[in-house]
Amino acid sequence: MGTVGTGVVRGFLERGGYLLRRSGVSMQLRRICDRHANEPHKGLRIDRSVLTTDVKQVLTDPEIDIIIELIGGIHPAKEYLLEAIRRGKHVVTANKALLAEEGEAIFRSARQHRRLVFFEGSVGGGIPIVKALREGLIANRIESIYGIINGTTNYILSTMDQMGCDLRDALGDAQRHGYAEKNPRLDLEGIDTAHKLAILVLLAFGRRVPLNAIHVEGITQLSGHDIRYARQLGYCVKLLAIAKRAQNRLEVRVHPTLLPSRHPLAAVNGVYNAILVRGDMAGDQLFYGRGAGQMPTASAVLADTVQLAQQIIGGHIMPPLEEERSRGARRLKPMLDICSRYYIRCTVTDRPGVLAQIARILGRHHISIASVIQQERQRARSVPIVLMTHDALERDLRLALGQIDRLPIARQPSVAIRMEEL
Amino acid sequence: MGTVGTGVVRGFLERGGYLLRRSGVSMQLRRICDRHANEPHKGLRIDRSVLTTDVKQVLTDPEIDIIIELIGGIHPAKEYLLEAIRRGKHVVTANKALLAEEGEAIFRSARQHRRLVFFEGSVGGGIPIVKALREGLIANRIESIYGIINGTTNYILSTMDQMGCDLRDALGDAQRHGYAEKNPRLDLEGIDTAHKLAILVLLAFGRRVPLNAIHVEGITQLSGHDIRYARQLGYCVKLLAIAKRAQNRLEVRVHPTLLPSRHPLAAVNGVYNAILVRGDMAGDQLFYGRGAGQMPTASAVLADTVQLAQQIIGGHIMPPLEEERSRGARRLKPMLDICSRYYIRCTVTDRPGVLAQIARILGRHHISIASVIQQERQRARSVPIVLMTHDALERDLRLALGQIDRLPIARQPSVAIRMEEL
Repeated sequence: MGTVGTGVVRGFLERGGYLLRRSGVSMQLRRICDRHANEPHKGLRIDRSVLTTDVKQVLTDPEIDIIIELIGGIHPAKEYLLEAIRRGKHVVTANKALLAEEGEAIFRSARQHRRLVFFEGSVGGGIPIVKALREGLIANRIESIYGIINGTTNYILSTMDQMGCDLRDALGDAQRHGYAEKNPRLDLEGIDTAHKLAILVLLAFGRRVPLNAIHVEGITQLSGHDIRYARQLGYCVKLLAIAKRAQNRLEVRVHPTLLPSRHPLAAVNGVYNAILVRGDMAGDQLFYGRGAGQMPTASAVLADTVQLAQQIIGGHIMPPLEEERSRGARRLKPMLDICSRYYIRCTVTDRPGVLAQIARILGRHHISIASVIQQERQRARSVPIVLMTHDALERDLRLALGQIDRLPIARQPSVAIRMEEL
Repeated sequence: MGTVGTGVVRGFLERGGYLLRRSGVSMQLRRICDRHANEPHKGLRIDRSVLTTDVKQVLTDPEIDIIIELIGGIHPAKEYLLEAIRRGKHVVTANKALLAEEGEAIFRSARQHRRLVFFEGSVGGGIPIVKALREGLIANRIESIYGIINGTTNYILSTMDQMGCDLRDALGDAQRHGYAEKNPRLDLEGIDTAHKLAILVLLAFGRRVPLNAIHVEGITQLSGHDIRYARQLGYCVKLLAIAKRAQNRLEVRVHPTLLPSRHPLAAVNGVYNAILVRGDMAGDQLFYGRGAGQMPTASAVLADTVQLAQQIIGGHIMPPLEEERSRGARRLKPMLDICSRYYIRCTVTDRPGVLAQIARILGRHHISIASVIQQERQRARSVPIVLMTHDALERDLRLALGQIDRLPIARQPSVAIRMEEL
């Protein structure tokens, strides 16, 4: 009975008839387990006999077919779910951290007990992206996924872009609007995005990726300057979750990324999420919507519950484990081996020939320059030089930036942001 | 074995193992019925015993569980499907005209014989929009749908916008690229869009709308001038399929529409399609992708076929008819009663006071002006006056334009294009 749980209960109470009419199955909300079961529940007319603080009353009730887990976090959600599955219950969850970190144990146990686990609400809020990847695009070999899947950071980046403000002000604004938590670390550092990406990679590539194998950079180092230069160059900056095949390896990474301003992903602003999926048959598809919030996530949880109920009554096959659905043994590409275009900003002493020095170092590392903005001098005789490169190796780029930053003309560490042309 | 059929066959032949691995069910392509069964088939290795020109060999074969209909048009597709259903076969079709015009007979017969009809490929090509409306958003009351669902017209409008050319040149370009047919009437006049909209309305609102009850305007009257003025005003022009609730009535219409340039729908260019769905729980969702073409549509058809096969083997309930899933008796709002903002372009004699005359007529009809562009004089002493109105009644607007066009200063009939702020 947290935020999403309250939305789900509201859905059951207020549109039971609607759900029955649309699905053809009748569902009963049998029990709500909540630590604070004795507190009033936000205007909902809940029969008190349904409420309990004792999880055993849910786990051991033989009348219950489906458990909906909306606790969040790993413990005790994991233990409850495993116990529920052992006792023959099907499961709906929106717990991205749990699935990203402990999904294997849960899916294996479900398979062993021939029970289903649905989790549409775990990625993209109300967007039916799990359904699209598992069912709608089932005939496709997925080439790549690019996702804006954290509403907090997207709101902050949109605000920085539109208001021309810095991260700190945009974060404060997001907190005032309830779009960022008091401790926003999981969002800002990209960890929440990585959790969701791990789930998408499992669905799209049949590959379980441990979180520590994902290269994750958040937005904490992003400066308003770079967002403004990007815009001048026809790009916008988004925190992107990326998974793509490249030379028979799989790249899986989370970092701020420059995208062409004309691409539909660039129009995804505020707390909205979007996932671009490139399938070999369907081509590019984009799924856009509210990525979090009470009713959007409840919409996904209810859809899962309805589908489970239909399958319990009508019958169903046990679908293969995701790892078995695609040839899953694909190796991950080490971050240093990826190939990308880069946006680079160097802050150097304003002196004739500095651009030549930088260009020479880049050239020596096989990095060629696509375009340059050299701004007018600012105070302290330092000047920003902004470059966009052609495709280059991450390894080469890091070596080159290291050399540039050791030049006597370097006034601040260089900034590099990866680009995707999409 | 037309365009899409060839794609579906290719899918079965080339990724049978992949489909089995991903779905858990084994499917066999039993028969292909094609008028030209004796011609070579585009490099596909088809067992000749599978090919036939005799549709009875498909319809009467008791081993066949699923019929995939990719003939197009009403006859004989309708008769074949009804016969197949009578003989106990489930159906996959991508035939939008058939479903829009004769869907009722087909769905009722399917229900009577307890057979399923899947039709993901009929709207939006490979985009899983049917699945999203039937399953992913099942808990939502849908408020509105806005769709760019005809790739040909969207390609033409994008070309007119980007190249600054007129309809005829853009159409020629589309035909050269294979994006428009030799006889492009069904696309240009909005009829194909209306077919697809009728299917979306059935799914979203449980309401069967006869085609002649849909207000349909195509793009044949659109001038490049209006696209350029719209852009100056911060809008773009799209051929939009619209269905929305308004004061307990349902509006269903197809016409060119001005959309704010910053909205994600405005970023849908070329042959891409997108459908914006507004649900009361999930909020705005947008589904974007290739709306036609061999492999995108084949992707949808294969997904339907896989799901059907899973349900045949695993079991399933008979879902309610779409008309029963929502309270479907909602009345349509007559076009004259709709309320909209309007873009208006009048071409008048360049003389002091002409704007005042136009504004007076609009005001008399309760139409207030939000903004104006008055351009410099062109040849023949005529000048365009471009206005955007606040919300107004269609009935009032038509009366006002009639009066304006009868003014002595009027040099050409006025142009009016509806706007959606989204």
